[in-house]
Amino acid sequence: MKKYCFGIDIGGTTVKCGFFNTEGDLLEKWEIPTRTEENGSRILPDIAQTINDKIAERGLDKGEIEGIGIDVPGPVHEDGHVDFAVNLHWGVVDIVGEMEKLTGIRTKALNDANAAALGECWKGGGAGYHNLIMVTLGTGIGGGIVINDKVIAGAHGAGGEIGHGHATEELTEPCNCGNVGCLEQVASATGIVRLAKMRLEKDDKPSVLRGRNFSAKDIWDAVKAGDEVADEIAEKFGFYLGRELSIYTVVSDPQLIVIGGGMSKAGTVVLDYIQKYYRQYAFAACKEVEFALATLGNDAGIYGAAKVVL
Amino acid sequence: MKKYCFGIDIGGTTVKCGFFNTEGDLLEKWEIPTRTEENGSRILPDIAQTINDKIAERGLDKGEIEGIGIDVPGPVHEDGHVDFAVNLHWGVVDIVGEMEKLTGIRTKALNDANAAALGECWKGGGAGYHNLIMVTLGTGIGGGIVINDKVIAGAHGAGGEIGHGHATEELTEPCNCGNVGCLEQVASATGIVRLAKMRLEKDDKPSVLRGRNFSAKDIWDAVKAGDEVADEIAEKFGFYLGRELSIYTVVSDPQLIVIGGGMSKAGTVVLDYIQKYYRQYAFAACKEVEFALATLGNDAGIYGAAKVVL
Repeated sequence: MKKYCFGIDIGGTTVKCGFFNTEGDLLEKWEIPTRTEENGSRILPDIAQTINDKIAERGLDKGEIEGIGIDVPGPVHEDGHVDFAVNLHWGVVDIVGEMEKLTGIRTKALNDANAAALGECWKGGGAGYHNLIMVTLGTGIGGGIVINDKVIAGAHGAGGEIGHGHATEELTEPCNCGNVGCLEQVASATGIVRLAKMRLEKDDKPSVLRGRNFSAKDIWDAVKAGDEVADEIAEKFGFYLGRELSIYTVVSDPQLIVIGGGMSKAGTVVLDYIQKYYRQYAFAACKEVEFALATLGNDAGIYGAAKVVL
Repeated sequence: MKKYCFGIDIGGTTVKCGFFNTEGDLLEKWEIPTRTEENGSRILPDIAQTINDKIAERGLDKGEIEGIGIDVPGPVHEDGHVDFAVNLHWGVVDIVGEMEKLTGIRTKALNDANAAALGECWKGGGAGYHNLIMVTLGTGIGGGIVINDKVIAGAHGAGGEIGHGHATEELTEPCNCGNVGCLEQVASATGIVRLAKMRLEKDDKPSVLRGRNFSAKDIWDAVKAGDEVADEIAEKFGFYLGRELSIYTVVSDPQLIVIGGGMSKAGTVVLDYIQKYYRQYAFAACKEVEFALATLGNDAGIYGAAKVVL
């Protein structure tokens, strides 16, 4: 009888580890450092070690473990190998093959943004839903498409890479991906700061954002305080993200769109600006798609990684 | 031992019927009229009749029939009911429930564009692929998203409704769906005619398209004959469709994009214009997605309908 599983979320500096029962209750979580030296060759052995230690510490038998789910920052093929993961200093790594050899436990691997989507769908802002689009608004924009409780990996590990849909002809500077005009250039935390700078340069209208450095959080604080220029910036952000999401929904036709990542901490005001433009542009059958904030925060990845082996 | 199945494609004027073996060979096809009178209440009984007749005519036992797949023009829920199908004069119809009662054979139902996508993936331009986006360029634009050999129905039956992604701020007249600026307004057969009229009004540059009524086919014939204005029109069409497809591919990340429908009969020249802009705008990991023409023509629907019960 399989009673437990592990959900592992590998980031550039720490590896988050979760020990779950198969109902999805997080029984224990801890972190280990991500040792990226020597081309990241110690990362998987370190994870295998901490898992083997945990099993011994708890006096468990490996036969009680359903599996290990691992997410990594970068595209992951369906068979669980990656061609590269820049932040981990990895080239080609067969995550599944190596982990199964090191632990003797069935392993699956997926992209970190996809894991977050699956986690939110299972136990977070999307609990009770089976079809959703997860949008992670951080320094960049991550995403994940969940259809019938499964996340779409894609033929090139790029399923749900919604930060890189083309969104505007207004920019000339390139995105990190090499293209120009990606959604994440105008709707991530750095994107909304870019929009704000462009707006402030346009005229001299007074705003609390003038004459200082500001973050995405400062912009949303100004919006909440009634700053008119900040409101215009939020409208533009909402236009770009809402319109783009309306395009994504004619592909997968979700029940729900979950907004997470650092910027979502500003709260429901973020949803208000997105929904306004989403509903304007969305196809009739998709207009009533619901919106929700993510609730699992930094734990979304370990939940999603655990779910993928259940 | 189940050896056969039926694929049924209900259109507004005729019902196309296919009798297949379970390897997917089309053994026989025929048509019956679509009787839309009395709110279309005769359509399913007529289909049940022709299926029962075919089984009797061939001296088969119902136990040899794996199932009946039926596609209809309109959104179909995953359980096989529709809320409406305008062209069939239908309101709420439980296709699966009614057909199973009338025939005693397991039935599944899906949207017609989704059936075409599945058919092309199985036996047409996408044979050998498992993940694709099908684009049907007709009077409107239909679409279907195939992921791991399954077509995405969507939470509101609107999966793959890619004709209604927002594509342009250039128009003021509404789409049939009620929105303004849908992809099908600029990239369907009627869409490219709209683009052509807009281009011709701009100046007096000579073109074989001037001073007469013309169709999408005439535009592509002019492109092939080297007409410069027609080339500009095709560029604009390629820009809109190629850019929009690049946005769709960050959602489902397909191996292949299949272009079908009446306008695809103009041949690979259509693909050339689409691919040029697709590759310009696509996310790095998706840039090398392949393009192919559909090959099943009007039979795509019956193939896809048959596939869904296998």
